[in-house]
Amino acid sequence: MSYTIGLDYGTNSVRALLVDVTNGNELGTAVYEYETGEAGIILDSADHNLARQNPADYLKGIEVTIQAAIAQTRKADKNFDTNQIIGIGIDTTGSTPIPVDENGSPLSILESFKDNPNACAWLWKDHTGHAEAAEITELAQKEHPEYLAKCGGTYSSEWFFSKVLHCLRTDPAVFDAAYSWVECCDYIPAVLTDTAKPDVIKRSRCAAGHKAMFNDQWGGLPAKDFLAKFDPRLGELRDRLYEETYTVETQAGTLTEQWAQKLGLPAGVPVAVGAFDAHLGAVGSGIAPGKLIKIIGTSTCDMLVSESGRELADVPGICGIVDGSILPGFFGLEAGQSAVGDIFNWFVNYLQPGGEKAGSHEALTERAVTLKPGQSGLLALDWNNGNRTILVDQRLTGLLVGQTLHTRPEEIYRALIEATAFGALTIINRFEEYGVKVSEVINCGGIAEKNPLLMQIYADVTGRQMNISRSAQSCALGSCIAGAVVAGKKAEGYDNFSEAQGAMCGIKDTTYKPVPENHRLYTKLYALYKQLHDAFGTTDYSGKLANIMKDLLDIKDSV
Amino acid sequence: MSYTIGLDYGTNSVRALLVDVTNGNELGTAVYEYETGEAGIILDSADHNLARQNPADYLKGIEVTIQAAIAQTRKADKNFDTNQIIGIGIDTTGSTPIPVDENGSPLSILESFKDNPNACAWLWKDHTGHAEAAEITELAQKEHPEYLAKCGGTYSSEWFFSKVLHCLRTDPAVFDAAYSWVECCDYIPAVLTDTAKPDVIKRSRCAAGHKAMFNDQWGGLPAKDFLAKFDPRLGELRDRLYEETYTVETQAGTLTEQWAQKLGLPAGVPVAVGAFDAHLGAVGSGIAPGKLIKIIGTSTCDMLVSESGRELADVPGICGIVDGSILPGFFGLEAGQSAVGDIFNWFVNYLQPGGEKAGSHEALTERAVTLKPGQSGLLALDWNNGNRTILVDQRLTGLLVGQTLHTRPEEIYRALIEATAFGALTIINRFEEYGVKVSEVINCGGIAEKNPLLMQIYADVTGRQMNISRSAQSCALGSCIAGAVVAGKKAEGYDNFSEAQGAMCGIKDTTYKPVPENHRLYTKLYALYKQLHDAFGTTDYSGKLANIMKDLLDIKDSV
Repeated sequence: MSYTIGLDYGTNSVRALLVDVTNGNELGTAVYEYETGEAGIILDSADHNLARQNPADYLKGIEVTIQAAIAQTRKADKNFDTNQIIGIGIDTTGSTPIPVDENGSPLSILESFKDNPNACAWLWKDHTGHAEAAEITELAQKEHPEYLAKCGGTYSSEWFFSKVLHCLRTDPAVFDAAYSWVECCDYIPAVLTDTAKPDVIKRSRCAAGHKAMFNDQWGGLPAKDFLAKFDPRLGELRDRLYEETYTVETQAGTLTEQWAQKLGLPAGVPVAVGAFDAHLGAVGSGIAPGKLIKIIGTSTCDMLVSESGRELADVPGICGIVDGSILPGFFGLEAGQSAVGDIFNWFVNYLQPGGEKAGSHEALTERAVTLKPGQSGLLALDWNNGNRTILVDQRLTGLLVGQTLHTRPEEIYRALIEATAFGALTIINRFEEYGVKVSEVINCGGIAEKNPLLMQIYADVTGRQMNISRSAQSCALGSCIAGAVVAGKKAEGYDNFSEAQGAMCGIKDTTYKPVPENHRLYTKLYALYKQLHDAFGTTDYSGKLANIMKDLLDIKDSV
Repeated sequence: MSYTIGLDYGTNSVRALLVDVTNGNELGTAVYEYETGEAGIILDSADHNLARQNPADYLKGIEVTIQAAIAQTRKADKNFDTNQIIGIGIDTTGSTPIPVDENGSPLSILESFKDNPNACAWLWKDHTGHAEAAEITELAQKEHPEYLAKCGGTYSSEWFFSKVLHCLRTDPAVFDAAYSWVECCDYIPAVLTDTAKPDVIKRSRCAAGHKAMFNDQWGGLPAKDFLAKFDPRLGELRDRLYEETYTVETQAGTLTEQWAQKLGLPAGVPVAVGAFDAHLGAVGSGIAPGKLIKIIGTSTCDMLVSESGRELADVPGICGIVDGSILPGFFGLEAGQSAVGDIFNWFVNYLQPGGEKAGSHEALTERAVTLKPGQSGLLALDWNNGNRTILVDQRLTGLLVGQTLHTRPEEIYRALIEATAFGALTIINRFEEYGVKVSEVINCGGIAEKNPLLMQIYADVTGRQMNISRSAQSCALGSCIAGAVVAGKKAEGYDNFSEAQGAMCGIKDTTYKPVPENHRLYTKLYALYKQLHDAFGTTDYSGKLANIMKDLLDIKDSV
């Protein structure tokens, strides 16, 4: 028997998962909620855009969760021996860069920066750099359009250089004190293997390629003179970043004696290079060419892979196309919706419709499930948090049309679910238009697990069967798989991801098949959605919209 | 001292008002809630469009309310003598036609039709005839476009012939049993004066002109051969309808002995020809050339008058232009919004946002009042019940754009108020574009009385001062004024409406003046509203909409 551990750093907590490498069985798991800030996030009431985290929480989480997962496993299996643990994998949110000193230590642990959120980790959802993002996009469009072609045409405020440049502009003391900046997914493996010093740390291909415009085509990171145009100091920082990046089959190092003791693990266990949660989540859900993995939570990530050797067009509006970012030897393609569960949460928690009892997710779902497609006469755009794919525009907002004096909360709730399904279909269509075929859809994440209504609507809207990843912890399982691959066959792991996934992943028995009549109605509604989508989201729309309200009523009358 | 009584038949109840003719002081008032159906309306759970009323409720209401109003006046003034009552005026909802027999009695009082809603009064908000309305519009557009030119270009399902034709088609037994059809505002004065027989009853110019395409230009009602094209029996009915119509300074007759005894009034008191509530409401609010009267309730009526001698264009989208429908000697112009208060009621009662306590009109208003124009980033269309003016399209629906993950109920509530203000401005602009000047705005109705936030927003959006009619019962007061005019100066009343209004009407001291900064912001928002309005409401819009969401965010950022 052999086991691996996956560490999955989410937005509010970190989870450790301990699995049996032979079959992916999950034997122990534990979660640690970050202690700093609100639900683990340092906020600023004066600036909605700010979201930071305390790196100390990340480190405490390692100990707490791994120890608890081991204890749980021991309890279930008296014969379990920690010496059977052969590898560790790590996934984190991103882009979540941390300013570090020459030793690779976060500046936030220095006394002088103790209470400065700019010295902490800049969480993925921090949008303070939105002006810098626009600036980077503008200059890249002019001078280096190739930088943007691989990341959907727009550089996001969520990404590495927007944040670093914003720090330079607004808190030069932190910027100047930072020897380098590391992604959270670089930092954790480096800490465990004592490779955190900026000159030895192994940087994640996934983070570099998707968020820092890293690509071998143009020699790695964006050119120094390009970065220097924003500020000479940004150009200089490039020399203290990296030339090389690594994919998840690479060993970041081996577990140090000190950490081994702290965690009760054997020293020398190989630790895989880190990657983003969605990317390893896709691995844990069985990603392979043609298999679209949808990680559905507050927002979604939609992941596909395509053989690296094959010709692959730059797909407009896709957030990222990076060689090896998901699986070594394959282009990783990342798309996503900026808000899915967050839209339903907004409706329930902010609008609180239907009074206090009738307005829960459960109560609304119970009533929404009785409605037929089109019956409400409503249609919504799923842009309450902007549109990531295919429009790549954070300054888009929500829209609801078709309400009458009789419209009820459950009708709006269902329209919001449908809107996210239409958004999901738009992403699938975009992939296929550019030759990336989708032959199977595997969903994972909390909403996919717990919301049969949503899954059925997704099947009905897309006309495709919806499968659910067998593991409820796909991201952590993906990290476990990475741990099994860095261990290798010699240590009772695997020599490649395909074998590891074959043994450790699967889908659930419950699947959702499209109902032809519903699909027919949703095809009509999607045509109207696409009209709104193009009219409000693109500048080249030249059609009219006076049909929308009437067509919705006609569909309503017909069901 | 002399007094008049006004009877005001609303959607759910009838009110009697007893006023002092010298100054309009309101001495006694009483309300009777109709007993039949839900809140006085006979509904059909299988057909949302159906809304009927029991004529017996109308008659019982006369007794109950007049007796109570007299009792109240007596209590306040020991010297009050019912012999000082010199006239009675009546206003009702409309088009509310009633099928009657040869004696002018509603068919609903016959045993054979007792429980048949088709034999009752077809309330203004009954939309069962929507297919027939479309049919009438289509044929009129082809053969008699002049019929539609005076009523906004579209014949409504709320109007006389749509209802009568629908009855013919769906319940021929009722249609065949009906000798004629009378409007509620014709029926009540006829009952009080024993002039109900179809050959003697005096028909209201207001009802005939606004709802039955009656116009002297083409010889009264639509041509017999035109009506016969829908069904020969409809053509035949025309012979049993009317050739003449009368304005509100005309006496319908005098109070019968029997009614006088029942009500405790002197027999022989003159009763004015009836008119619609909004029209007499405009009279009671002091309508005169240049004075726009806005009656704001669940929906609005927007009334203007223009000298009959003057050249007056057909104003597209205005519901009706009828000589003498409001004041004798003036064209009455009627516009309106299909839903105002109803939209806020929908939000509060159907969506029930903010939990049970935080979602009342009061609680939402309290928070909405603290918001600045544009601050929410939201924009709505006020079409939850279609658009009466200027688009004349009942198959339009609501729209809300700009919502994010932080949007709160009070922000939407305010956006809905603003949407109705933008709708109001669109009506004012339409009048002025066609040469009907608006130099003053006088508001009346429950919402105008009780909602300072709404009134201030209307002032800020339109850039015009909002005045409020002094009487809280403008419609009933208008009926009292009609009663004073039919009485005439000889009986201590007035010989014309101008004198009567001068003595009996006024505005409140509290007025709402536009705040320049708010008006500046709302002018920007209105430009966006107009884009949405034209894009979704007209087929000739050729502009783009991709600016809408961004412009809303820019405005939001600027305040």
